[in-house]
Amino acid sequence: MKYLSILGSTGSIGRNTLSIVKMFPERFAVSALAAKENVALLAEQIGQFSPEIAVVFDEQRAAELKKRLPATSHVEILYGEEGYETAAIQGDMVVTAVSGAAGLLPTLAAIDAGKDIALANKETLVMAGEIVMKRAAEKGIKILPVDSEHSAIFQCLAGQRKEDMDKILLTASGGPFLNRPKQEFADIKPEDALRHPTWQMGKKITIDSATLMNKGLEVIEAKWLFNVSQDRIEVVVHPQSIIHSMVAYKDGSVIAQLGIPDMKGAIAYALSWPERLPLKQPVPDFANMTGLTFQKPDTNKFPCLALAFKACEQGGTLPAVLNAANEVAVYAFLNHRISFPDIPAMIEKVMERHTVIRNPSLSDILEADRLAREAVETHLT
Amino acid sequence: MKYLSILGSTGSIGRNTLSIVKMFPERFAVSALAAKENVALLAEQIGQFSPEIAVVFDEQRAAELKKRLPATSHVEILYGEEGYETAAIQGDMVVTAVSGAAGLLPTLAAIDAGKDIALANKETLVMAGEIVMKRAAEKGIKILPVDSEHSAIFQCLAGQRKEDMDKILLTASGGPFLNRPKQEFADIKPEDALRHPTWQMGKKITIDSATLMNKGLEVIEAKWLFNVSQDRIEVVVHPQSIIHSMVAYKDGSVIAQLGIPDMKGAIAYALSWPERLPLKQPVPDFANMTGLTFQKPDTNKFPCLALAFKACEQGGTLPAVLNAANEVAVYAFLNHRISFPDIPAMIEKVMERHTVIRNPSLSDILEADRLAREAVETHLT
Repeated sequence: MKYLSILGSTGSIGRNTLSIVKMFPERFAVSALAAKENVALLAEQIGQFSPEIAVVFDEQRAAELKKRLPATSHVEILYGEEGYETAAIQGDMVVTAVSGAAGLLPTLAAIDAGKDIALANKETLVMAGEIVMKRAAEKGIKILPVDSEHSAIFQCLAGQRKEDMDKILLTASGGPFLNRPKQEFADIKPEDALRHPTWQMGKKITIDSATLMNKGLEVIEAKWLFNVSQDRIEVVVHPQSIIHSMVAYKDGSVIAQLGIPDMKGAIAYALSWPERLPLKQPVPDFANMTGLTFQKPDTNKFPCLALAFKACEQGGTLPAVLNAANEVAVYAFLNHRISFPDIPAMIEKVMERHTVIRNPSLSDILEADRLAREAVETHLT
Repeated sequence: MKYLSILGSTGSIGRNTLSIVKMFPERFAVSALAAKENVALLAEQIGQFSPEIAVVFDEQRAAELKKRLPATSHVEILYGEEGYETAAIQGDMVVTAVSGAAGLLPTLAAIDAGKDIALANKETLVMAGEIVMKRAAEKGIKILPVDSEHSAIFQCLAGQRKEDMDKILLTASGGPFLNRPKQEFADIKPEDALRHPTWQMGKKITIDSATLMNKGLEVIEAKWLFNVSQDRIEVVVHPQSIIHSMVAYKDGSVIAQLGIPDMKGAIAYALSWPERLPLKQPVPDFANMTGLTFQKPDTNKFPCLALAFKACEQGGTLPAVLNAANEVAVYAFLNHRISFPDIPAMIEKVMERHTVIRNPSLSDILEADRLAREAVETHLT
């Protein structure tokens, strides 16, 4: 039995993780569930999976949660930073599925406690990849990717010698504006972006998919997860999202991982690796496909991708700045405060004014994150 | 240094193998070269690679070869069945690249001598898969596939647990007549078939590609190489031949191996496994592809594929009969003695009249092979 602590249990990754737990009750059980504000769903999940610990954002939500649970419930209810870090040291494996910078500290706590990590939170590696991977290596724990692209790369590297790798081919759907002319980008409304063609995801990541920042963050993540420099990571636009990513080897051979666009496969692989679970997911229906196509990403149309490569190359605190500035800019766009093209423009401005700190400490990173958020906010007002 | 004995050194696989030896002289050397009749090329290869043994088909060619070599040459020249079997027990690894049923006995001799096999000869496994795999297991030797499809499957299985496999997706270019209406098949001339779109191969295998018998033989081969029943092998037509084959797992994940259509990759992988060689082969140029398409094979148009599945399912001596009848029918077609649709018709007739021997001995198989050839010849006259 593998005991899971799920940070972000009410989000899309969290819910899918629990659906896998439900499919394989003889393999998985839940030690802790942590959410932010969706108290109603969390209460339901507690009823179904009986964790020992449940965590919410603040005292008020903790009280709300308590009210929703039957008096007979034995779950210990915690809240706030301390609560998340307590949840992060439960069970055998921690699923980090919270979104945003909030994922970093609990993930580090989990690593320090010697837990294996199923990592769905991009920011953990984007902000502090060097620190996180170093601590993971010291503790001898495994970080298993949950993102479908990184899971694909991980699967394509299985059974291969690291030194035989040539480059990573990270596929991207291209987002909903792949074929829209750049001059129309100023007219893009949040609603347009939120209709993402293939994946059902949260709002922040959906906008990141539309700007290709999501792919940029994945490049940075891949650099740390697989220990390769950014010049050996190539983004390939593949609108059908059937190939989830590829790895090219030095003999010209390319290994690809394919599947229908459903995040359960990648989550389950992280939970059960090196085994695979009989998920009853259909294999892609090749005979009835219209075809798999590919193109180069257009960084002129999607400057966020180029900014991410730049941050990746310069390293230090710059990826944290990129990420923080992006997060604030995306929410400003979602709240109709800035236009779609303003997102990369603001990030670029903040990146330009940032003095990069090399080999940053965790507090350097958190400070750079804070200052970048402030800087965008200043531009907004 | 790995010493190679190359059976069929003047054919396309043999020549490509030698080009890899030439690229990596610090890794590979040649112990023996065996050809059939191309004495001129063999003499050249002997001059370049200095094997200890060279083998040709008969005494007359052996004399011709001797004449072509400088008097100072130390190579031992052998001929005939005994010669091939002597070549097959040289070096560290035997590359079986002869075409047709002639590959079986030398391969068995190599296995019995404890040599690893790089297997490009389909007939070895089609005729006697059970015997060959059993002896290989007893001797603890490895059989590494050289066919691009089987190499792809082998690469897609690396690092995976066998029990997690769902099915093999064997890709097929579909051959030159994929889109030709069936009613025009009677008009197909050997010359039409010999213009195969993507691969440069010998005549026999080119016709087999046009009838899809090549794919059928590969199904039988895959069954033995990877120990799966034929109902877990699915043929997927993929005209661009960029995906060389795929393996689907029980979690819905599919691992694919891709590359430009060039046989060097698969040969090199067999020679250097588990390492990969820096072949300087370009990775497929995804951004400039028109797209990868797939379709179901049409066994009504290409009955050879259905016949091969049938032989695979019934087993015993039937695959050997299928293979022998096909070989004679293909040469009859190449010699303008029968039409293109006559190929499957003749094979079917011979298969129907054959009484299958279960768990056949090697001599049962060779006898079934001989009788099937005779039967086709009888129909021809």
